[in-house]
Amino acid sequence: MTSTSLWHPQTAMSTIEESLTVIASGRGASVRTEDGQDLLDLPAGLWHANVGHGRTRIADAVRRQMADLETYHLFQGMANRPAIRLAERLAALSPIPDAKVFLTSGGSDSVDTACKLARRHWQLAGRPGKRVIVSRQHAYHGLHGFGTSITGIQSNRDGYGGDSLIPETARVPWDDLAATEAELLRLGPDNVAAVIAEPVIGTGGVLLPPPGYLTGLAELCRRLDVLLIADEVITGFGRVGQWFACRRFGIEPDLLTMAKGITSGYLPLGGVLVSRRIWEPFFAETPDAPTFRHGLTYSGHAAACVAAEENLSILEEEGLLERVLDLEPVLAQALTPLRDHEAVVDVRAGTGLLAAVQLDPDADARPVLRAAREGGVLTRLLADNSLHVSPPFVITAEEISRAADVLKSALDRARTLESA
Amino acid sequence: MTSTSLWHPQTAMSTIEESLTVIASGRGASVRTEDGQDLLDLPAGLWHANVGHGRTRIADAVRRQMADLETYHLFQGMANRPAIRLAERLAALSPIPDAKVFLTSGGSDSVDTACKLARRHWQLAGRPGKRVIVSRQHAYHGLHGFGTSITGIQSNRDGYGGDSLIPETARVPWDDLAATEAELLRLGPDNVAAVIAEPVIGTGGVLLPPPGYLTGLAELCRRLDVLLIADEVITGFGRVGQWFACRRFGIEPDLLTMAKGITSGYLPLGGVLVSRRIWEPFFAETPDAPTFRHGLTYSGHAAACVAAEENLSILEEEGLLERVLDLEPVLAQALTPLRDHEAVVDVRAGTGLLAAVQLDPDADARPVLRAAREGGVLTRLLADNSLHVSPPFVITAEEISRAADVLKSALDRARTLESA
Repeated sequence: MTSTSLWHPQTAMSTIEESLTVIASGRGASVRTEDGQDLLDLPAGLWHANVGHGRTRIADAVRRQMADLETYHLFQGMANRPAIRLAERLAALSPIPDAKVFLTSGGSDSVDTACKLARRHWQLAGRPGKRVIVSRQHAYHGLHGFGTSITGIQSNRDGYGGDSLIPETARVPWDDLAATEAELLRLGPDNVAAVIAEPVIGTGGVLLPPPGYLTGLAELCRRLDVLLIADEVITGFGRVGQWFACRRFGIEPDLLTMAKGITSGYLPLGGVLVSRRIWEPFFAETPDAPTFRHGLTYSGHAAACVAAEENLSILEEEGLLERVLDLEPVLAQALTPLRDHEAVVDVRAGTGLLAAVQLDPDADARPVLRAAREGGVLTRLLADNSLHVSPPFVITAEEISRAADVLKSALDRARTLESA
Repeated sequence: MTSTSLWHPQTAMSTIEESLTVIASGRGASVRTEDGQDLLDLPAGLWHANVGHGRTRIADAVRRQMADLETYHLFQGMANRPAIRLAERLAALSPIPDAKVFLTSGGSDSVDTACKLARRHWQLAGRPGKRVIVSRQHAYHGLHGFGTSITGIQSNRDGYGGDSLIPETARVPWDDLAATEAELLRLGPDNVAAVIAEPVIGTGGVLLPPPGYLTGLAELCRRLDVLLIADEVITGFGRVGQWFACRRFGIEPDLLTMAKGITSGYLPLGGVLVSRRIWEPFFAETPDAPTFRHGLTYSGHAAACVAAEENLSILEEEGLLERVLDLEPVLAQALTPLRDHEAVVDVRAGTGLLAAVQLDPDADARPVLRAAREGGVLTRLLADNSLHVSPPFVITAEEISRAADVLKSALDRARTLESA
């Protein structure tokens, strides 16, 4: 029995004593363990360290804000200035024209907010039957009540009783528009509130959308009068070389969830971009306009908003979105040769700094992780034994090349070891 | 149509232009608006500013941590030192002996985590029928998927279709053990996972538990083999003069949710304390021990954990829990005379720095808020037109006395105005 009091998320706790790695510091694309080992941070934490680690500029701005005012809430007419400024800035970057911004503390929050708002929209519109949220196989949308119910990763939904906590949900294949249309027609568009989709599926293994899939999905939703929620918690804020993947793929969703890269993980923050179609009745200047009875204590936390502002400024001033586009082929070319390795099933890359090296889903991948670690490269496993590659945008071409070499050596070494 | 892009939580947006108040800074128990008015912060933000505003000590500690390492996640064996330290410290303060600590980013997160864990517990224990979460009328448990489904404030559950998003929930009277037992028996204890209760109901209007209620509820849950979740998001970390209200009221829950006072709002953080009965199977040193497939990107955010550590140190070093107990009768004695005011229906006080002045639920209370504001006192409305009083622990007896005088004048002045 381990002596720690900390219950780690998504972790087999019986293994924690042997596996525990404590990160002590970070600079740029690397982190250092308490033992003094430097590791290239290929997953950028959990997809979030877009501007890289050790940004004292963000730390200084947060300190100044906290010393003046840690936060003041936004309920019932109260506000703080950083939240107001950040909302204006996000609306200007939004792929949804004239968007309103609902702020949260993270991606799971944003998903539950968007799903509630989708259902609220149809109730208000006098179509109360439209309640089902449709999601894709392999999808990850956080793990609150709604997110747990709509995940396309079955193990995240198992063990709570019933197929999902919230019954009005359905799953469709991740890449098949015809099957999606058939399922929407089977459910009946009059019963469906929204389809939610990650433009590039992340935790499910970095699954790139087939050509035309996303525009086809947007067209399908429009045709059947079903809302489209783009979950850009991973893809937002430059990960695919644009502020949002919706711009890159040319779609305009009704709701867009964001988190992670919004602060590069420096402080917990998330949000939802809301289209006029949805926000308009709530903002009508009539005494009987409805209120969205939703919110979090830290919706628009002042210090977190300042971290986001500073992070957006770094992304802009250092041209990091352009850098992602420059490095996109470098990463793809470095990883693609791994496809020929006998331990590798597939390499998925080519859209921004977002890639995965898929191993045999039934193999024991832990020796590969350990060998990579010994070579100075930190990665982790996504669904189905995919090695997670989404480095900070400040990574260099040389570091990408080194990471690919280390992964290759690690695959070679692990191959020579006994595997479970 | 307002020009702002920010969608305020729980706010009638058509009124935002006339009502917007931007807080610029804070010191101790007061905040200052952008217009330069100083206001006594009676709600302590949203119940969270326990150590008061403007604590540069917390800001400095957060800056140091962020400059070294903003955070590193806790998934799959990774960790950061502040999360490990904080968990040990929370376990030591816990009213649940030998507790494990699951960290989140806020109160809503903690509630959804606790509810999922309660259902997971019974599925694992081979009693899959035990799925219903029972909550109390007037209860507030955040607004994620689970929290929205179990709220006892009807307006927060309306408008999404169905009685609640998650169907397996039930409500009982907030103060009636016999009715609660009858409802548990009607549902069948074999179908009930847990009862969730705020030791003192907060957003519902500061409803103090009747004498013996909480120990009776704990006994009832034990007798019927139903888990008890104590929601201490508001009451934790000194608000009622002890680290947790469960200590003050002498109960030991199976799960305890926390947030707000854990950092005094300086950064978003929350958590769940978990009893051995629930965590033991997950920590068994066997290869087939189950994994709790749950977690948030920022579960154990390093900078947020440092803010919590510094906040706990301030509470300890400045003796602020003792101060709350000293001020408890001061606050009660200052507010109780308002009971005689014709506009006042009830005054609820006497447990820590937690009180409400209940006006006529059908009156227009906005003139009272405005008049108080003009007198330099900031308050807000809880459910049923209760004025929210839960000041920072650093408030002085003189400031309490002044606040009560201002509230009385505000009630007098509002009485002379036309009310809606």
